[in-house]
Amino acid sequence: MNPDAKIDLNALRIRIDEIDQNLIELIAERFKITHQVGKYKKEQGLHPIDPDREARQFEKIKTISNELNVNPEIISQILRIIIDEVVKNHQQL
Amino acid sequence: MNPDAKIDLNALRIRIDEIDQNLIELIAERFKITHQVGKYKKEQGLHPIDPDREARQFEKIKTISNELNVNPEIISQILRIIIDEVVKNHQQL
Repeated sequence: MNPDAKIDLNALRIRIDEIDQNLIELIAERFKITHQVGKYKKEQGLHPIDPDREARQFEKIKTISNELNVNPEIISQILRIIIDEVVKNHQQL
Repeated sequence: MNPDAKIDLNALRIRIDEIDQNLIELIAERFKITHQVGKYKKEQGLHPIDPDREARQFEKIKTISNELNVNPEIISQILRIIIDEVVKNHQQL
C-alpha cells in the first residue's frame, strides 16, 4: 500500500466526518426554525401542512440537485424524512 | 393576521430554503469525496463496504444528534440513504 495514498484516505475521511457534523448542525437549526413556524401556524389557526409550499420546496431542491450533479431522488428522500418529522412535530403542538 | 408575524414567517422560510441549499451543497461535496475514496479502494483492491468504519460513523452521528437535541433516528435514516447510495456507486466503479 502506498503510504501517501493512506494519508490521503484519512484526510478524506476527516472531511466526510466534518460534513456529517455540519449536516446535523444544519438539520438541528432547521428543526428549531420549523418549530417556530409550527407555533406561528398554531397561533394563526393555520393547517400544519401547506401542500403548495411543500411542492415548491421539492421543485427547488430538484433544480439545485441537478445543478450540483447530485441524484435528485436521494435529496427528495432526505427532504421527505425531514418534512414528515416536521409535520409530526407540528401536529403534536 | 398580524403583519409583523407574516414578515417573520417569510424570513423563517427564507432561512429554511438557505439551509436546504446548504444541505444539498454539503451532500454534493460528500459524494465527490466518497467517489475519490471509492476510486482509491478499487486501486488498493479494498472492499467497497467497511463495516467497522460505518459502525463508527453511526455511533458518532448518534452522539452529535443527542448533543444537538435532534432525533438520532432521523439522522440515522438520512445517513443510511447517503451511505447506501455511496456503496451502490462504489460497486459500479
